[in-house]
Amino acid sequence: MSSVTASPTSTPSPGPAESPDVTEAVRATARRAQVASRALATATRATKDAALRAMADALVVAAPEIVSANAVDLERGQAAGLSEGLLDRLALTPDRIAAIADALRELAALPDPVGEVVRGSTLPNGLRLRQVRVPMGVVGMIYEARPNVTVDAAGLALKSGNAAVLRGGSAASSSNTVIVQVLGQALTSVGLPADAVQSIDEHGRAGAVALMHARGLVDLLVPRGGADLIQTVVREATVPVVETGVGNCHVYVDAAADPAMALPILMNSKTQRVGVCNAAETLLVHADAAAGFLPAALTALAGAGVVVHGDERTAALAPEGVDVVPATEEDWATEYLSLDLAVRVVGSLDEALEHIRTWSSGHTEAIVTNDLAASRRFVAEVDSAAVMVNASTRFTDGGQLGLGAEIGISTQKMHARGPMGLAELTTTRWVVEGDGHVRA
Amino acid sequence: MSSVTASPTSTPSPGPAESPDVTEAVRATARRAQVASRALATATRATKDAALRAMADALVVAAPEIVSANAVDLERGQAAGLSEGLLDRLALTPDRIAAIADALRELAALPDPVGEVVRGSTLPNGLRLRQVRVPMGVVGMIYEARPNVTVDAAGLALKSGNAAVLRGGSAASSSNTVIVQVLGQALTSVGLPADAVQSIDEHGRAGAVALMHARGLVDLLVPRGGADLIQTVVREATVPVVETGVGNCHVYVDAAADPAMALPILMNSKTQRVGVCNAAETLLVHADAAAGFLPAALTALAGAGVVVHGDERTAALAPEGVDVVPATEEDWATEYLSLDLAVRVVGSLDEALEHIRTWSSGHTEAIVTNDLAASRRFVAEVDSAAVMVNASTRFTDGGQLGLGAEIGISTQKMHARGPMGLAELTTTRWVVEGDGHVRA
Repeated sequence: MSSVTASPTSTPSPGPAESPDVTEAVRATARRAQVASRALATATRATKDAALRAMADALVVAAPEIVSANAVDLERGQAAGLSEGLLDRLALTPDRIAAIADALRELAALPDPVGEVVRGSTLPNGLRLRQVRVPMGVVGMIYEARPNVTVDAAGLALKSGNAAVLRGGSAASSSNTVIVQVLGQALTSVGLPADAVQSIDEHGRAGAVALMHARGLVDLLVPRGGADLIQTVVREATVPVVETGVGNCHVYVDAAADPAMALPILMNSKTQRVGVCNAAETLLVHADAAAGFLPAALTALAGAGVVVHGDERTAALAPEGVDVVPATEEDWATEYLSLDLAVRVVGSLDEALEHIRTWSSGHTEAIVTNDLAASRRFVAEVDSAAVMVNASTRFTDGGQLGLGAEIGISTQKMHARGPMGLAELTTTRWVVEGDGHVRA
Repeated sequence: MSSVTASPTSTPSPGPAESPDVTEAVRATARRAQVASRALATATRATKDAALRAMADALVVAAPEIVSANAVDLERGQAAGLSEGLLDRLALTPDRIAAIADALRELAALPDPVGEVVRGSTLPNGLRLRQVRVPMGVVGMIYEARPNVTVDAAGLALKSGNAAVLRGGSAASSSNTVIVQVLGQALTSVGLPADAVQSIDEHGRAGAVALMHARGLVDLLVPRGGADLIQTVVREATVPVVETGVGNCHVYVDAAADPAMALPILMNSKTQRVGVCNAAETLLVHADAAAGFLPAALTALAGAGVVVHGDERTAALAPEGVDVVPATEEDWATEYLSLDLAVRVVGSLDEALEHIRTWSSGHTEAIVTNDLAASRRFVAEVDSAAVMVNASTRFTDGGQLGLGAEIGISTQKMHARGPMGLAELTTTRWVVEGDGHVRA
């Protein structure tokens, strides 16, 4: 859900290189995952939940060992000059490990998506038809140096009956190696194959490339991280990919907005957590609401340390002592992931819709209004994964929307859109039962 | 649903070339489609159905013109030495055009998938949440020289609220040009944009490549045709693709099968229509059933003109005068799409499952049995889009399974699996309504 870097305008790097030895090693890993996935596909919920709880317990027991391995990563990261933010995401403490383990236990409490009958009927000719939810098989995950994601992804894959092949950022490789070992022992302890959770971190960047190309072995690949990582995976992969995460999210304050409602929604959308994909990056204000809303809003934003990049009409409404940096087109395009906000005054709802159509990444947009017709048009015409009416953009989150845990937020339209929970890690199978039926 | 060629073992050709001018032209077409898709997304079912009926009427009125254009294609095809089968698929007659028009009218009678609320609830904090089915936007389609697919794809896209960018085989380009013109006029007559259905045939192969790379402009690309075409698209495309069609389908006659039920299922699966992806290509027979089933089955197959490629145990059971060609591994891998059938005697259900796991393309497999436990295991362990129990493989078809029309049969697990009907041409949007809700 969160992105470490944001560079929507960055030049695509040349395709990363593949190495034959690494390719074979990664394909062998994926084949073992495929074999393991068969055991997972027919495992009962009871067994999978027991595995999740065993994994949680084992992580807590192994916390000292994990923290030691993590210290190695941290030391290497410091030597390599990683930023404070990246080092913080990389760091594990006994408390953080306990929280990660608790997330696995919460996963155990969620319903099993596998086996759900999505559709079913008896056809006129007597054929009994049902479409049943089944695991994807092998789920690949490419992410950054955040060891908590290793556990998270392993847990979500397991609960949905999938084997996981994980490639975390190499800066976390010592931590990930120990974590995957611990998880594998927990799996074995309940009779599931350790190969259900494997890491390919040791193969570095070439391993990630081999995973992207492991067609026929990887049923779904989910990249999670910054825009560069996601774009590389989307461009390179020949296996099915779900694009996640980039969120250039808009809050539109309509002519008919209640300023007392609009301000908390704006502040929450922008400042409640800045480095995440569902944070707001642009504020659009209807011209009729601008004079009544913007002065107070700009003051509040400045008070929260937000740098406003505004158009001329915004600047004209700034109270004395509140700075507005002149906005350029680049600002409309940018997912800041920081205490920056682009602000533009628009002449109409149409102009707001046009701005969003032009610049949005299709993640989340919010309208604040008391006008039913405006709300209806916004919901119908904004083509994003989530559309909020009188609510913060920060609600686009699997946990907040009641889906339970999430593996990422899809910004593409195929397969899954918005928060991807357990059901989005499954596919379906048609089961057709007859009594000797043949086609006429 | 049907494939013209089958070469699962063919060497991948080098990536096809792109041309800058063609790329720009195709991207401009896709951008126009994107604009048109906005009108379609909010069009009511009444308008879309009126358009489908207008399209049907217009095709019938324009039949003489279409047949003339088709004659040009046929003449060029004959000169180029196209096979009888390909020429037949290419040929249009007034009767065929009437049938194509009728299919559009049937589409009008199907429910509209757009607007369906897939999930909905009110969260504990009072947020009203609903997941609504919406169109994908722009659907691309790359297919062979079959002008009926042009109409079919345009109709399915329209009914599901999508704009279509179509690239048919160049052998059908004269027919397609006229058809797309006629469809565009029909769209305009009901107030919908003609750009909702566009062809890029004029740009040839480079146009197809540009479409595969039109990321951000094409929301879903569906290849339909032979294995080579599909593999090229899957390998080259950077836009989201659904892989369709290759069907190396198996019929397994279990130890507990009733031979009187197994024979009609086998014959229907193999011979009812041979050139299609849901036809059976391999028969597996449990050793305990072989002596009681195979002699009669081999005789019936020979009588229907089917060439059997069998293992040694199969050959040993062939009645006098019935030839069995010795099978090689290549036979297990081949989607014949012809009057050929690979036949193997297996020692157990496990051996049948292992054979299917190794060789199946994940399309459709059937078991014939009266043993509940065997049926249950087959359904649970065969990882294909469709699993038939005591029914012909030929039922894997949108029309047969009651989904209405279909745009193809997906053999991948992401997004859609099995017959792709109207719902599979849509995505969803989360709509969240609050009263000033912010995240704590």
